[in-house]
Amino acid sequence: MPQNIAWDAAGVLRCLDLLAACTDQEGEITRLFLTPAHAKAVALVRGWMQEAGLHTKLDPSGTLVGTRHVPDAPSLLIGSHIDTVRGAGRYDGCLGVILGIALAARLRDTPLRYGLEIRAFGDEEGVRFPITLTGAHATAGNFDPAWLSAADSDGITLRQALENFGLDVQALVEGACTADRVFAYLEIHIEQGPVLEAANAPLGVVTAINGAKRFSVTLTGQAGHAGTVPMAARQDALVAASEMVLAVRRVALAHPGVVATVGRLSVFPGATNVIPGACTFTIDLRAPEDGLRNTAEHKIFAALEAAAQTHGVRLESACLHEAPATACDARLQAHLAKSLSQNGFLPIRLPSGAGHDAMAVASLCPVGMLFVRCAGGISHHADESVTEADVAAALDVMTRALQTLNPADFGTP
Amino acid sequence: MPQNIAWDAAGVLRCLDLLAACTDQEGEITRLFLTPAHAKAVALVRGWMQEAGLHTKLDPSGTLVGTRHVPDAPSLLIGSHIDTVRGAGRYDGCLGVILGIALAARLRDTPLRYGLEIRAFGDEEGVRFPITLTGAHATAGNFDPAWLSAADSDGITLRQALENFGLDVQALVEGACTADRVFAYLEIHIEQGPVLEAANAPLGVVTAINGAKRFSVTLTGQAGHAGTVPMAARQDALVAASEMVLAVRRVALAHPGVVATVGRLSVFPGATNVIPGACTFTIDLRAPEDGLRNTAEHKIFAALEAAAQTHGVRLESACLHEAPATACDARLQAHLAKSLSQNGFLPIRLPSGAGHDAMAVASLCPVGMLFVRCAGGISHHADESVTEADVAAALDVMTRALQTLNPADFGTP
Repeated sequence: MPQNIAWDAAGVLRCLDLLAACTDQEGEITRLFLTPAHAKAVALVRGWMQEAGLHTKLDPSGTLVGTRHVPDAPSLLIGSHIDTVRGAGRYDGCLGVILGIALAARLRDTPLRYGLEIRAFGDEEGVRFPITLTGAHATAGNFDPAWLSAADSDGITLRQALENFGLDVQALVEGACTADRVFAYLEIHIEQGPVLEAANAPLGVVTAINGAKRFSVTLTGQAGHAGTVPMAARQDALVAASEMVLAVRRVALAHPGVVATVGRLSVFPGATNVIPGACTFTIDLRAPEDGLRNTAEHKIFAALEAAAQTHGVRLESACLHEAPATACDARLQAHLAKSLSQNGFLPIRLPSGAGHDAMAVASLCPVGMLFVRCAGGISHHADESVTEADVAAALDVMTRALQTLNPADFGTP
Repeated sequence: MPQNIAWDAAGVLRCLDLLAACTDQEGEITRLFLTPAHAKAVALVRGWMQEAGLHTKLDPSGTLVGTRHVPDAPSLLIGSHIDTVRGAGRYDGCLGVILGIALAARLRDTPLRYGLEIRAFGDEEGVRFPITLTGAHATAGNFDPAWLSAADSDGITLRQALENFGLDVQALVEGACTADRVFAYLEIHIEQGPVLEAANAPLGVVTAINGAKRFSVTLTGQAGHAGTVPMAARQDALVAASEMVLAVRRVALAHPGVVATVGRLSVFPGATNVIPGACTFTIDLRAPEDGLRNTAEHKIFAALEAAAQTHGVRLESACLHEAPATACDARLQAHLAKSLSQNGFLPIRLPSGAGHDAMAVASLCPVGMLFVRCAGGISHHADESVTEADVAAALDVMTRALQTLNPADFGTP
């Protein structure tokens, strides 16, 4: 563990390099919830929190909490996660946690009108168990005991895994993780997209975490001999699907903020000389506001119905998943934007296409997010990358933002 | 074996039902080249040929030949095949063979200016060995000895299979199968497409057997997070592929006679929340004339290049297969059309999208084909179906055609 960390951008990146070595899979970063790698990461991060002058505890949900208590004052939460996907990069989640600690360290001797809680959640990626955001949900007082029965691929339930990790499941169920007297939550995260890079900007203020809806679509046409059925007599399911893929894109392009993707598509029977008789595909639709997303959904499905009719194929669809959009608090957005401007950066605002812990904390208190530019928009991959200059910018902007943040602007929690 | 066959449409259909019982797979029709089922079919068909007054021999390529010799006169070949795909119908190939025998029987006592050879080829479907049309090629004097090394899925070579069937491989190689003094070849076959049904016509004259070309296309774009990459910044390989699928159809529709099909398409990585980074698909392109097919090919690939450029994806393609078009002889087309008209049928002309033995015989002599309507255009399936009335029409039209056919119109072979 490095002693006397400088808590500048280089120091933050050095911590992230050390954290990247906590893995359950040699040669890559794979750190799932409640695994030995997670335990190593907790120990490492706990040391840094202590070095930053924070009091630490591991809460019953597996969230590591570093606290600066300010008597009679409410608290600001700063959080993100230290679990990863398999074969991850070193910045997704961890950057926000280490920056939070660095901010606490830099402001150690600065009087603040609020306390600080830096939270390192253990389960944002949802890779090990078929549940996600359990730490952030527990922080918001929304842990669902039913989740304890969720099992990983080895059949180990969340309850067993928590107990094996030395955590108090009963306390978790009774709400012991719930953060108290919190007036706001801030999360710093890599963008995981190319918007800031394209805008030549190191940082951006998140307007909302997009709501998402996923659909499966099945088209049934008529298979036939590719040589003998005239073009005009065909009911080609892939031709119909192709019109639909383009319609999905067209509707999204026509509604700024909406993103829509056909990521899977299968053709049946799938032979070179057979006209496709059936086709299945998925649609992933996201927007920063649910109303906008609903508008796009209706336009997409109207276009799908029209294409199905044109090509004489039967259309069936099902909704596989739905999550509402989470708006970032307007006051926190304005505050972050002002800090950006005062530090000489364009106050770019953008929605988050990916989900974050902030979604789950939003039921507890106003949430705000700052995005840090990442190279090529790449995430969930070893090539994930940020620059030291951008990390320095984030530190400076957030230092200013925390110095000027007034809990009174958010009412008394 | 039925004695005293009537050799009308009902008799032909009765023979086809009996032939359908020659299978190597109980409960379906599966009769591959040089199998026990093929041997049973040869024995059955040989009996019917003899009953029709023909002299029979099994030639060294496995083709059963029934001959009516007319001294000093050239011969008309009438042929098709008695092998099938797996899970076949009962009419593809066999209908033409049995109709040929029925015609010989009906004309038995009618003086003809030419001899008759009814040929029942054993290998048109190309299912057992990775070669096809060997019998028809041998008839045309084009048997390639290299084919003897082709092996089936059990490792049995064509040479071994021919020997096991009791055939003389040396004679085959030396050209013993080549038909002599042939002035024309006629083949009757089910349409395997919906054109005649749509035209409400029992029969049609084939103009050409379409040439075919097959391509594989690979598109490489940029995978990315379905939530975080804005629409305008994407290089979505499936979106590009979808434009291409529609372009393939558009070009084919704009060139009457051309059929083009994307029958296989795969998306990579193929996850609901990942923008497709790559896509592969096939194109099957057919036309009754090679020039027309080349024109369509150039227009398709121009459209593909344009779509690739629009969407920032890399396009690679390869030709997997190419077969030139086989024109049916204009005199034979006119003769068949005239017989249709004289029998009160519309002389509909149409290309064949599927391949036939006539393709291989075309290097020996002029070829002509008559298509018989099949229900729903369905073939290579147990649901393959023809009506007794349509078979009667084919018998009547072909009887008239053979009665009036003059070998002198085709020069002296």
